[in-house]
Amino acid sequence: MSNPPPFSRLVSSLPASVPFVPPEETERQKGRQIWLRLGANESTFGMSPKALEAMQQATAQSYLYGDATSYELRGELADFYGIERKNILIGSGIDELLGLTARVFLNPGDAVTTSLGGYPTFNYHVDGFGGILHTVPYQDFRNDLTGLAEKARETGSRILYLSNPDNPTGSFYPPEAIEKLRRSLSPDCLLLLDEAYVEFAGENAIWPIDPEDPQVIRTRTFSKAHGMAGARIGYILGNPKTLAAFDKIRNHFGVNRPAQAGALASLRDRTFLEAVVESVTEGKKEYARLAKETGFITLPSSTNFVTFDMGTAERARATMDDLWERGVFTRVPGTAPLNRLLRVSVGTPEERREFARVFREVVSSLPE
Amino acid sequence: MSNPPPFSRLVSSLPASVPFVPPEETERQKGRQIWLRLGANESTFGMSPKALEAMQQATAQSYLYGDATSYELRGELADFYGIERKNILIGSGIDELLGLTARVFLNPGDAVTTSLGGYPTFNYHVDGFGGILHTVPYQDFRNDLTGLAEKARETGSRILYLSNPDNPTGSFYPPEAIEKLRRSLSPDCLLLLDEAYVEFAGENAIWPIDPEDPQVIRTRTFSKAHGMAGARIGYILGNPKTLAAFDKIRNHFGVNRPAQAGALASLRDRTFLEAVVESVTEGKKEYARLAKETGFITLPSSTNFVTFDMGTAERARATMDDLWERGVFTRVPGTAPLNRLLRVSVGTPEERREFARVFREVVSSLPE
Repeated sequence: MSNPPPFSRLVSSLPASVPFVPPEETERQKGRQIWLRLGANESTFGMSPKALEAMQQATAQSYLYGDATSYELRGELADFYGIERKNILIGSGIDELLGLTARVFLNPGDAVTTSLGGYPTFNYHVDGFGGILHTVPYQDFRNDLTGLAEKARETGSRILYLSNPDNPTGSFYPPEAIEKLRRSLSPDCLLLLDEAYVEFAGENAIWPIDPEDPQVIRTRTFSKAHGMAGARIGYILGNPKTLAAFDKIRNHFGVNRPAQAGALASLRDRTFLEAVVESVTEGKKEYARLAKETGFITLPSSTNFVTFDMGTAERARATMDDLWERGVFTRVPGTAPLNRLLRVSVGTPEERREFARVFREVVSSLPE
Repeated sequence: MSNPPPFSRLVSSLPASVPFVPPEETERQKGRQIWLRLGANESTFGMSPKALEAMQQATAQSYLYGDATSYELRGELADFYGIERKNILIGSGIDELLGLTARVFLNPGDAVTTSLGGYPTFNYHVDGFGGILHTVPYQDFRNDLTGLAEKARETGSRILYLSNPDNPTGSFYPPEAIEKLRRSLSPDCLLLLDEAYVEFAGENAIWPIDPEDPQVIRTRTFSKAHGMAGARIGYILGNPKTLAAFDKIRNHFGVNRPAQAGALASLRDRTFLEAVVESVTEGKKEYARLAKETGFITLPSSTNFVTFDMGTAERARATMDDLWERGVFTRVPGTAPLNRLLRVSVGTPEERREFARVFREVVSSLPE
């Protein structure tokens, strides 16, 4: 059999890689089923009953394409944030929007700055559009904002990526720190602020939204606190001139109809969201006590997951593997020094109890 | 307010354009609601009740990400076609897959051949990745296969796009014609065969699938006969080496969970699909009689829509506009000579009667 026609130079240059192997694939490879899925920061509280109802109703209408402009949902979000529709762009989750951001801002060879061990899917898309990644190590398991600002200037980066609250550490920076980072940018660098977990930041003050700032875009999602990861819907808050560039290239009819309806209903159900956040806050305390009881510590978390510092990469890996053998899915970041962290989503109270039980068993059998 | 950081050269070079204005947007602009939506070739028969049930059940589980490998659905499709999983790639509808195809095969400046007035979203994605479109006029409202083959050779095209059955004309080519086109390709040209409407081809023989052919990919969808346009799911049949290139760049977790479940269930419900195809076949005959009765003709259609030849672009436009004023959404292609065609989706028997009623009113009031 002969070869396909030549691929583009860019695609030819890329390695075969995927940002994440899905747990279903690992289940098939290992021949073991997961019964406690705490490795992808999905919200096992599920979605708002009102969102579920709206999605199910919209499913019955899904022989029709969804509105390519997401007019209603953007209106609801605009009201929610006190901004305008033109400051909002809807996509099939943050992952798609990160890819579009790379495509809008990068020529092949352009520099991008992110943390070493930051979100792999962002890196995947930067690679995919020929950008050159420059990384700055975490400092004490927090993004090094000064180091990121310096690296971005030094490399002439076109994008500086920051996840805040951060994945995979759970750490968070308050408004003044982000403001300082923003002011440090040269005029040809975009601050891409990934706020997937912002609803879990709790009592922390969030950097105020300036929807007209031409150098900032913020990505948010219905995948985490809203419990709609499998529905695939997220959004960008940004300057209309920037969003107009996205509109030149995005897949206009890509956001499915039920997700649009579900997101709208979920936004209106603040009671449900608050209950989820409250239970997650409680769960984070439980995980901290569990760590202490078993001789470990957890890092402070402003997300819906907790990272257990297992002391060494070997111990973190052994714990994750043993948990998997017992049907419990968690994750350990691939990059040192984050690879000594075990990242565990905060599930429902019952799931937390089950996790605590299995975790105690696993760590009690770890080699010293 | 200052400008955003510079966009990529490619994005900067693109005009502000969208392939299709969604009917919801036109409704808002015109201040008039549509009650009969026959302009987007959606299947108003809806989806299989089994698919609907499967989607609604999966929605309740949609706090979980979907399987990024779509393992089960690919298995079902592989069985259905008698091919292997590795020959199938799932995406969020054909539109996304057309964009990925452009990205996999095109360097900026590379040539692409398509019909003049062919599917606008394909052209949009070619533009979006810097490809140069070369077009061949339709001949008698059919794709000119000889002309396309010549143009592809002459321009050194990397992709030759063909919709078969064709949108917007409804025309169809049998296996021997496609085989001849395939054989005409130089080794560095891909045949991108868009078969969105293949289930409606009826008694026509379909070009046999050779899943290992490295120079062909075929796109198919659940948006048309399966009635799942708003769910956003489609697929490519192709050579594994080609699909591996897609896997290097695609948005791995982009296909929503309910759509995967619905597609699986719909594939298994052949009875429903056959009933839809049968009613559409009947509807095409009704539309042909309607045209004859009102002094027009329809083109033969192997799709779920019928194009009425209104004789002139002015008359086609006036008919579409008047239909819209009466709350009926149809489309007229933008490019001559196709712009004398009124494209009308075949709806349910009741919708067909309603359309006939309004169409008669409209054409009776057309200027001579």
